[in-house]
Amino acid sequence: MKKFMDENFILENKMAEKLFHDHAAKMPIFDYHCHLIPSQIAEDKRFTTITDAWLGGDHYKWRQMRWMGFDENLITGNADPYDKFLAWAETMENLIGNPLYHWTHLELQRYFGIKDVLSRKTAKKIYDEANEQFASNPELSVFGIMKKFNVYAVGTTDDPADDLAQHKIIREDGKCPAKVIPSYRPDKAINIDKADYPEYINKLAEVSGVKITSVGDIVEALVKRLDFFVEMGCKATDHALMTCPHTFWKEENVNYVFKKKMHGEPINETEIDAYRTYILYNLAKAYHARGIAMQLHFAAIRDNNKNMFAKLGPDTGFDAVYDRELAEGVSIFFSKLTETDEVPKSILYSLNPKDYYSLLTLMGCYQGGGIQGKIQLGSAWWFCDHKDGMEQQIKTFADLGTLPKFVGMLTDSRSFLSYPRHEYFRRILCNVIGTWAENGEVPYDEEYLGRIVEDISFNNAQKYFEG
Amino acid sequence: MKKFMDENFILENKMAEKLFHDHAAKMPIFDYHCHLIPSQIAEDKRFTTITDAWLGGDHYKWRQMRWMGFDENLITGNADPYDKFLAWAETMENLIGNPLYHWTHLELQRYFGIKDVLSRKTAKKIYDEANEQFASNPELSVFGIMKKFNVYAVGTTDDPADDLAQHKIIREDGKCPAKVIPSYRPDKAINIDKADYPEYINKLAEVSGVKITSVGDIVEALVKRLDFFVEMGCKATDHALMTCPHTFWKEENVNYVFKKKMHGEPINETEIDAYRTYILYNLAKAYHARGIAMQLHFAAIRDNNKNMFAKLGPDTGFDAVYDRELAEGVSIFFSKLTETDEVPKSILYSLNPKDYYSLLTLMGCYQGGGIQGKIQLGSAWWFCDHKDGMEQQIKTFADLGTLPKFVGMLTDSRSFLSYPRHEYFRRILCNVIGTWAENGEVPYDEEYLGRIVEDISFNNAQKYFEG
Amino acid sequence: MKKFMDENFILENKMAEKLFHDHAAKMPIFDYHCHLIPSQIAEDKRFTTITDAWLGGDHYKWRQMRWMGFDENLITGNADPYDKFLAWAETMENLIGNPLYHWTHLELQRYFGIKDVLSRKTAKKIYDEANEQFASNPELSVFGIMKKFNVYAVGTTDDPADDLAQHKIIREDGKCPAKVIPSYRPDKAINIDKADYPEYINKLAEVSGVKITSVGDIVEALVKRLDFFVEMGCKATDHALMTCPHTFWKEENVNYVFKKKMHGEPINETEIDAYRTYILYNLAKAYHARGIAMQLHFAAIRDNNKNMFAKLGPDTGFDAVYDRELAEGVSIFFSKLTETDEVPKSILYSLNPKDYYSLLTLMGCYQGGGIQGKIQLGSAWWFCDHKDGMEQQIKTFADLGTLPKFVGMLTDSRSFLSYPRHEYFRRILCNVIGTWAENGEVPYDEEYLGRIVEDISFNNAQKYFEG
Repeated sequence: MKKFMDENFILENKMAEKLFHDHAAKMPIFDYHCHLIPSQIAEDKRFTTITDAWLGGDHYKWRQMRWMGFDENLITGNADPYDKFLAWAETMENLIGNPLYHWTHLELQRYFGIKDVLSRKTAKKIYDEANEQFASNPELSVFGIMKKFNVYAVGTTDDPADDLAQHKIIREDGKCPAKVIPSYRPDKAINIDKADYPEYINKLAEVSGVKITSVGDIVEALVKRLDFFVEMGCKATDHALMTCPHTFWKEENVNYVFKKKMHGEPINETEIDAYRTYILYNLAKAYHARGIAMQLHFAAIRDNNKNMFAKLGPDTGFDAVYDRELAEGVSIFFSKLTETDEVPKSILYSLNPKDYYSLLTLMGCYQGGGIQGKIQLGSAWWFCDHKDGMEQQIKTFADLGTLPKFVGMLTDSRSFLSYPRHEYFRRILCNVIGTWAENGEVPYDEEYLGRIVEDISFNNAQKYFEG
Repeated sequence: MKKFMDENFILENKMAEKLFHDHAAKMPIFDYHCHLIPSQIAEDKRFTTITDAWLGGDHYKWRQMRWMGFDENLITGNADPYDKFLAWAETMENLIGNPLYHWTHLELQRYFGIKDVLSRKTAKKIYDEANEQFASNPELSVFGIMKKFNVYAVGTTDDPADDLAQHKIIREDGKCPAKVIPSYRPDKAINIDKADYPEYINKLAEVSGVKITSVGDIVEALVKRLDFFVEMGCKATDHALMTCPHTFWKEENVNYVFKKKMHGEPINETEIDAYRTYILYNLAKAYHARGIAMQLHFAAIRDNNKNMFAKLGPDTGFDAVYDRELAEGVSIFFSKLTETDEVPKSILYSLNPKDYYSLLTLMGCYQGGGIQGKIQLGSAWWFCDHKDGMEQQIKTFADLGTLPKFVGMLTDSRSFLSYPRHEYFRRILCNVIGTWAENGEVPYDEEYLGRIVEDISFNNAQKYFEG
Repeated sequence: MKKFMDENFILENKMAEKLFHDHAAKMPIFDYHCHLIPSQIAEDKRFTTITDAWLGGDHYKWRQMRWMGFDENLITGNADPYDKFLAWAETMENLIGNPLYHWTHLELQRYFGIKDVLSRKTAKKIYDEANEQFASNPELSVFGIMKKFNVYAVGTTDDPADDLAQHKIIREDGKCPAKVIPSYRPDKAINIDKADYPEYINKLAEVSGVKITSVGDIVEALVKRLDFFVEMGCKATDHALMTCPHTFWKEENVNYVFKKKMHGEPINETEIDAYRTYILYNLAKAYHARGIAMQLHFAAIRDNNKNMFAKLGPDTGFDAVYDRELAEGVSIFFSKLTETDEVPKSILYSLNPKDYYSLLTLMGCYQGGGIQGKIQLGSAWWFCDHKDGMEQQIKTFADLGTLPKFVGMLTDSRSFLSYPRHEYFRRILCNVIGTWAENGEVPYDEEYLGRIVEDISFNNAQKYFEG
């Protein structure tokens, strides 16, 4: 019997312990994809209460509180902060086996030095202690946190129409201990099915200074913004897609779709896909030309509760895992890019682990040309981001790809309290590799395996994005 | 090396043993979904031979005997009962790793006190001993079995047109040690694609006293029958569906489909789905209004062998796991119910484990409103109901949901000899949680974990269905 | 800690060790599906360098070298053999967790007696030693290899239009220690969508002596060739299919599709499937009549890189795992065959493990009629052929089928160096079964379990194909 979440948490054997403590633990964090709000970094924000820090915007937690049957007022409403915290504490009692159980206790241990198990019984003591520390502990500002966790860089998620003013402030201020890198996420320019698309196009035209009357103009505007982002340090882009666009039409026909939409006429699924394909394809070529990594996040089905969407809007805990077939679209899209040898560095994520086999084997078809692990399977994402899910992602990556070239973990988080998720990932990684060594499936060679662990923890990401 | 299926079967560590022996084992059984035949309960049926009890109607076993190449005469035909039993014993020798291997030996141990391994060598001895006990052991009548296994309640599966006469007899008789609860399964009213649909509608009209000339009338008739079922103690309904209906049409258009069918005209897939959607949607609202749990069983593809279907009919071992996409349908159907805040308590099952990620994350979008675990992922069902499958269902439930609120196991069985499957499930559950505790992934706290195990074994189901 | 890949590699407990060393290891190899080139067998070929043997045609390895970013010249180009080998050695350093890591080291150990770990450091030494042995060691000719590995039979993969001249030479020569059995693979006659189809039909007409003017003629020609193959010892056929054909049309309509194609007119997806269905259905009946096993390989999506396809052609490492739904097609196709009781012995493979549940439960619907395990789930194939994948295939086979009747492993390989993959499979199999025994999940009975292991290793295949 091991003590609850002690220093050898997840590490089930000697080699796993050595790999983690002597190799993984010391590596900096390159959190290359997250949703931190740049203005909160710029102002070196401090939270005032643990309720605010944990429950202010974390839809992972909100979902679980709804599983517990709590009234929405205790979740996203105006209930008393301590009552909300108490509801969260009761939820926690019911989260054994869920990643939030580990994340929460890692956060208590690593940020606050609190080793208690959170429950209704301990809630008051923990609440007071955490709030006291938020008020007094200098390590609990954004910069304090980044320093403490050895954060080398964070990649925020930004709209092409964004002026990146906050990024400029951060850079000019010079006090943030981590690099803060904008990432380019042009979803609004691609989602022609959305009602606010025409409005967005007008905004894009204004910000870019490109008069937009055709899809070619959209690409021109987007690439101008991309160049601005690259000037500002951008290393990666990001796209949220249910499936992979793969309807290649002549430009004139895509233009016709665009015009119909701008005139308020209905467009069908095939037309939408043709438009998306046109934009994504042309952006992919632009990414390739600039050496920027393209991240594609597949297979989320969003806003599945109309009632709550009307009340709370998007990103409030009503998204889920999609299950449509994906392989053919990815094949057609990337194969087209091979024709002109313009496949960009790419990281493919799927919210549905059923896609790992297809994605990993497809990406094997586009590797090469001097970049190690040019196309990557992204770390276990969102609903897959738990011990079982990370083990599956790591093992499948090894089974079908080249694990030592994996660019590793990212938080995808809106919270400054999420850095222990890198530790969690590294422990799981070290345990998988350590177990192979103990079983005689790989050489019992700490130096060799330690280097691989260090690479996946940090070096690979640095080389991939900055090398 | 552990002894074959001894008292610590499946339990791999101390905490697992404590959780099972001191917490799970003592809990009653709430077998909330099964296919027991009410008349057999009413008459306190006794089997006369183990061949009759085991091979009389169990298509799980028939399938495996076909894998062995046996002539159908030894499976569903008129062969000598002992010859059939011997064929089953030979099959058993080849079922290592299959749940039937464990179920069979648990049944021998728990019902008959027989600890031998079933094989051709031991077949005669076991056959004679079991048959002798069927003749003489008072614990082997239906009531004896229910008492011995501490069965609190069973939920049978009944057609809305059923008069529940047997349920009345059981209730009035007062001797059955378990509550016998009817469950409402209106498949025949929903399966408009079937040839016998018009005939069924006429029967429904007659039984309900509602003149049926429109789909609105069908709903009225079904709800009248539902109210009768509720009066008779019904707590849950059940639907067998390949995918989730999600074609919302205006009532007049659905009526048109209904009329075409009643006039013998062909109807297409979209029309069928629109009809199904209309009925299921309106029933879901009625379930919600009555606090009844809606069970949806997805992803079985049935009657895959035309030749054997012609000879033996349905439910004879020729069904399989379907693999169509499911997420979008579930999203549309349930999201529609949110618009009027009428999502009923629901238990979603899929015969294909590939659907667990989608189902668990989608159900997270409809939780809340004062009911803990309002929407549930059903226990590993049918072809998934084995050790690997249950571990996967339990772990995925924990990864993506709130495991301590799980309503737990059901047998889904036609047999009175299936109660050890609850024990099997509980052992697997205790082993998963016990292993977490031993590994330091959850607190090593028997009281805390023991309560969770007791809840999942029984309390949650009681509260969910009766609370 | 276990030594790297020692004699108990993969074997984690005593029973596993006993099952492997005392039962599995001694069994002959029936490699019933491979891609060995008959002429290389006929000439008792010897390789001259390890580069030639390992990197001359193995697209598994090429893919991984592309993951490493190497220039294509070092992979399939004209680079110096040692430079290629060195690139492969560096790739090897990055393949922990990948089956190639184990395959490579098993090959070094078993063929050359080399126990070193392959890396850039050891590359020169290993290169020289292996090449020296290729030149001098009599065990390293094709016949030497087959003798050393106790190869009982190999099933090559041959086109119906092939004259099997090399098979005749091998037979007449009488020196090959293994039976060399042709397998019938009529993909070219089925792939009516391919540009070279008309040309192939003309060739088939010529070779068979059947004038082909209708689809009936094609079947006649194919069956004539099948009879010739059967005369030549053929025991199995093979089909590569993305999904299962299941569009049953009247013969005259299929004829119309055929004629359109022969006249260079375009044909659509449904027409293609109707043609495929017609041919496959009629061949299945012919296979059934001759007692030949039909292998169906599903769910590969091929040639996903247009640029590299133009340069290197097919089978060069640009294939992947497909993900379309499969169950309905399999159900319709096989159900049709039941109508006339003409389901042949069949082995169904899918490249996507998501299909295992559907395939195993569907095949349960077509078992019986005196043949044990008449329909089989093929061993973990290609991208699934690794430790995790084989464990999944074996356990799922046991969960849903009758594992002791499994016909077991095949290499599917183009290489004479692949026989240790049988050893790898057997170790994994013994470990799964041995672990069940140690855990008390099956009887701790070496004789009983040993027989099962021997059957799966060899006896089942011999009985299935030759019995």
